[in-house]
Amino acid sequence: MFTLKAMLPMLRKQLGAPIIKSRSLQTSAMLHKHVAVVLSGCGVYDGTEVHESSAILVHLSRAEAEVSIFAPDKPQTETTNHLNGETSKSERNVLEESARIARGKIQPLSDLKAGEFDAVIFPGGFGAAKNLSSFYTDGPSMSVDKDVQRVLKDFHTAKKPIGLCCIAPVLAAKVISGCEVTVGSDKEENGKWPHYQAAGAVNAMGAKHVIKSASESHVDSTNKIVTTPAFMCDTAFHIIFDGIGTMVKGVLKLV
Amino acid sequence: MFTLKAMLPMLRKQLGAPIIKSRSLQTSAMLHKHVAVVLSGCGVYDGTEVHESSAILVHLSRAEAEVSIFAPDKPQTETTNHLNGETSKSERNVLEESARIARGKIQPLSDLKAGEFDAVIFPGGFGAAKNLSSFYTDGPSMSVDKDVQRVLKDFHTAKKPIGLCCIAPVLAAKVISGCEVTVGSDKEENGKWPHYQAAGAVNAMGAKHVIKSASESHVDSTNKIVTTPAFMCDTAFHIIFDGIGTMVKGVLKLV
Repeated sequence: MFTLKAMLPMLRKQLGAPIIKSRSLQTSAMLHKHVAVVLSGCGVYDGTEVHESSAILVHLSRAEAEVSIFAPDKPQTETTNHLNGETSKSERNVLEESARIARGKIQPLSDLKAGEFDAVIFPGGFGAAKNLSSFYTDGPSMSVDKDVQRVLKDFHTAKKPIGLCCIAPVLAAKVISGCEVTVGSDKEENGKWPHYQAAGAVNAMGAKHVIKSASESHVDSTNKIVTTPAFMCDTAFHIIFDGIGTMVKGVLKLV
Repeated sequence: MFTLKAMLPMLRKQLGAPIIKSRSLQTSAMLHKHVAVVLSGCGVYDGTEVHESSAILVHLSRAEAEVSIFAPDKPQTETTNHLNGETSKSERNVLEESARIARGKIQPLSDLKAGEFDAVIFPGGFGAAKNLSSFYTDGPSMSVDKDVQRVLKDFHTAKKPIGLCCIAPVLAAKVISGCEVTVGSDKEENGKWPHYQAAGAVNAMGAKHVIKSASESHVDSTNKIVTTPAFMCDTAFHIIFDGIGTMVKGVLKLV
């Protein structure tokens, strides 16, 4: 009798040890752009926003990029019950939860070397503000995870493009002095931009905030940083999907 | 000083009690098709495949459908560590984990009434075989969650379309006697279809399996069931995204 469970040994083999290239995204290699994607868990309120990461992977796949996925191998700052917003006691690991989005094909962020990639992209979600930095509790005086800091500095120094969306642009605002990013609008507009005050936080960190809609992205060509508001805006899923498409395209164009 | 944490009371209010319509997907209502999406957790190996659910929500959003998301309020059959495929001891609840994909806007599956919707869609992921049914361990002799069974029967009886992808079509194969579905190919083709034996299981349950590629969907117009292989196929993300688009379009056309 066929059961999925009987195929488990094969599944284990598929996951196994670190895999450099996501096989399902891999094409004929060599000529393709190689992009690192950095996750921060799985779920908008304590990790990566799943739809943002999915949109990034779909757009990169369509552009025939080779993709490798990374996340910090450390405990989450907290676990949020996504039904009621409450903090739960269960401890979760950022890399393990991110593996849910990566379908098991993921490596520790400490292994990400800028020299091996053409570009790096950070989706949003509160994980960027809880696990990749302390923006969630500390605002503009936040600290940034040391590997995230190293990765951003190394890509920037190597003049390789960096894409970020939603709340993740605060990471670039903090680490790359004087850069330009967007987190959407600096006004609430009847609940359309519930986290509009993040724009002020960007400026308070010495970066320059640029107002953009969810269907657009902002290109800081001096610093090769491309950002889009994504779920900072309370709008339809396909608008966010398309806005992320402009960010991915902008990043690949700068390679 | 602005921090995201200071805005937590607002977030709690946004999540709160059951919400019928996902606000971010809601447009001018009334004239729009109302579609229920049924999740089974969050993560391919013990819940909903996140990219499949995300693709479904993007395509429904683009078609201006109104969407309500549901999942069973019960413990997951097991929790799988997505890094190594091992079963972990931590207990998780299907509804709570599904809320990560639904961004908190989700209701218990027991509240889903076919009379209130035009169509229902089930994304795949092992959650369909572990939490919505026992296909994972029992193959063709599986049992189906009683609410899943009720929902499928009620939509079918009301001649309202049902969409399913990946491994989820086995649910229709079991519940709707003699229907036609696809789970992709019935041959392995050098690893392209790692779970190809599911096709035989579909036939063993008295349904008819139809071979389709990941970019296509199969329409059983008699039973109003539309299915697409999605991640049953080891292929590129954008091909799966587009294949799911044909399934969503097929479902909406049958309303």
